[in-house]
Amino acid sequence: MKLATLRDGSLDGQLLLVSRDGQRAVRAGAIAPSLIEALRRWDEVQAPLGELYAALNAGSAPGAFDFDPAACTAPLPRAPQWLDGSAFLNHGRLMEQAFNTPPIPLFDSVPVMYQGASDDFLGPLDDVPLPSEADGIDFEGEFGVVTGPVPMGVSPEAALACVRLVVQVNDWSLRALGPHEMKTGFGFLQAKPSTAFAPVAVTPDELGSAWRDGRVQMQLNVLWNGERFGEPHGGEMNFHFGQLIAHAARTRRLTAGTIVGSGTVSNVARSAGSACIAERRVIEKIDQGEIRTGFMAFGDRVRLQACFEDGQAGPFGMIDQRVVPATGAP
Amino acid sequence: MKLATLRDGSLDGQLLLVSRDGQRAVRAGAIAPSLIEALRRWDEVQAPLGELYAALNAGSAPGAFDFDPAACTAPLPRAPQWLDGSAFLNHGRLMEQAFNTPPIPLFDSVPVMYQGASDDFLGPLDDVPLPSEADGIDFEGEFGVVTGPVPMGVSPEAALACVRLVVQVNDWSLRALGPHEMKTGFGFLQAKPSTAFAPVAVTPDELGSAWRDGRVQMQLNVLWNGERFGEPHGGEMNFHFGQLIAHAARTRRLTAGTIVGSGTVSNVARSAGSACIAERRVIEKIDQGEIRTGFMAFGDRVRLQACFEDGQAGPFGMIDQRVVPATGAP
Repeated sequence: MKLATLRDGSLDGQLLLVSRDGQRAVRAGAIAPSLIEALRRWDEVQAPLGELYAALNAGSAPGAFDFDPAACTAPLPRAPQWLDGSAFLNHGRLMEQAFNTPPIPLFDSVPVMYQGASDDFLGPLDDVPLPSEADGIDFEGEFGVVTGPVPMGVSPEAALACVRLVVQVNDWSLRALGPHEMKTGFGFLQAKPSTAFAPVAVTPDELGSAWRDGRVQMQLNVLWNGERFGEPHGGEMNFHFGQLIAHAARTRRLTAGTIVGSGTVSNVARSAGSACIAERRVIEKIDQGEIRTGFMAFGDRVRLQACFEDGQAGPFGMIDQRVVPATGAP
Repeated sequence: MKLATLRDGSLDGQLLLVSRDGQRAVRAGAIAPSLIEALRRWDEVQAPLGELYAALNAGSAPGAFDFDPAACTAPLPRAPQWLDGSAFLNHGRLMEQAFNTPPIPLFDSVPVMYQGASDDFLGPLDDVPLPSEADGIDFEGEFGVVTGPVPMGVSPEAALACVRLVVQVNDWSLRALGPHEMKTGFGFLQAKPSTAFAPVAVTPDELGSAWRDGRVQMQLNVLWNGERFGEPHGGEMNFHFGQLIAHAARTRRLTAGTIVGSGTVSNVARSAGSACIAERRVIEKIDQGEIRTGFMAFGDRVRLQACFEDGQAGPFGMIDQRVVPATGAP
């Protein structure tokens, strides 16, 4: 199933089903008013949602209409938790050099993860209001999963079975603020403004063999102001999503709708490019001796779209966002 | 006003007003179904809530009943964000020694703060299920504030005017897991299981002169298994709550109901005792050459209650919790 959320001014929005071809949608409010409510009653709503999805794909769902990503919020405009890993070790190792921070202990064997704000996500085409270009504005292309309820102390294998949906993420980051916050040991806060999501969340079966080994085996195509920036592959994730969820649930239960992110998608092969600017900058420094690329300016756009290995567009739809000065920003 | 939340199986619970003497309560659902909803419509509900509160105090509120903290969840059983500072520098400096972590840069001039989970808070008398005594189970007595909506880039002075409620907090911590998470730079996650709150949230005016300079000028009385552990005073907070809120809102807006914590209440004077075990342990090491106190065992209780400077019990009610093995824990 493919699910999205129609913006209606409420905190959780209205649940939509989106057709497999991404062209049509239908309100699913008679089954569950919102995606978060569907996730809380998943066992009960899964079958009726599946029937409506089948009707939508067959062209027989009453009230279906053309799907408009611009009318959508993030699939979950707010979530119980947003927990973002750093599961592509290639990215993490490069960022240690970019930030000049000490090596993370046990980085190869224990996932690292920060707790992000989850009350105020951005939609796929929303402008991104930020206070200052001097903060080092950067995107981070990621994949993520949405869980059902997860018990405390779950195993990585059992955790993987708690995955309900797969999502595509833009984890906005402010690079001038990150190194200080890492050095405090308290983690990212100011360095992580509101996170954005592609419009469509999908059940893992929609990905077919591209959901394999607890990873999203797809390329993430990144364009910055219309120019190719990279297309790293999600399969290089060093910890799978079950391991990330189990890490998050070591000392707490997770409630339905918790979102767990992969961290910036990153490949060892330089030819893949990058899914964030900070990584390109440190690669420039390593490979060419100097940093040539600046961070984003107000007015800049980033576009993120996942593709299957055969080049076909993925089911999540597109993140396409512009950074703008926050009201009152200098 | 004094507000609390009746447990009813829903995610946000039912809004109660509690009498000034803490003895009586009345459902306020006709004005706002829950505290979070009241905070979202504060300008509109403040006057009718005030009228009902006056009637409750006068003994003329229809349907009033005896207030029972055991029937309460945290005032906000879930919140948009839980952002916990470390605004008592005495505590922070001692913890650096306890954890053997590097000095936090700019610790005297820039607040440190971590993003905690905010979807699954514990009530004031709830048992605390945790996976293992080996994790170093510890309490942390704190004060906190609940904000209205806060714009991005707010000044500390304007931020202080966004305070709607004052709360009392027990920020449960697992000390064996904290140092590693600090060293990753990604901040606390496993080291911070669900946080607990005293039953009553109060508008700042209820504190009279004990709400002064953006700080809670009260003692926090801490008993561990019935024995005196400390009574540090909230007035020694090195950053005031307006500064903490402004720090949190530097690159994001805060939505109504965001909770900002002080960090562990801590005084320079050794005679004040401590509001967490980790602090007592490092003081023992410094002053007596060896650590004598262990962390909590399953079955242990901690009681936290704020008192005015004249010794009178504060308006928040009591946190009184027992740690228990999580289901399935070894």
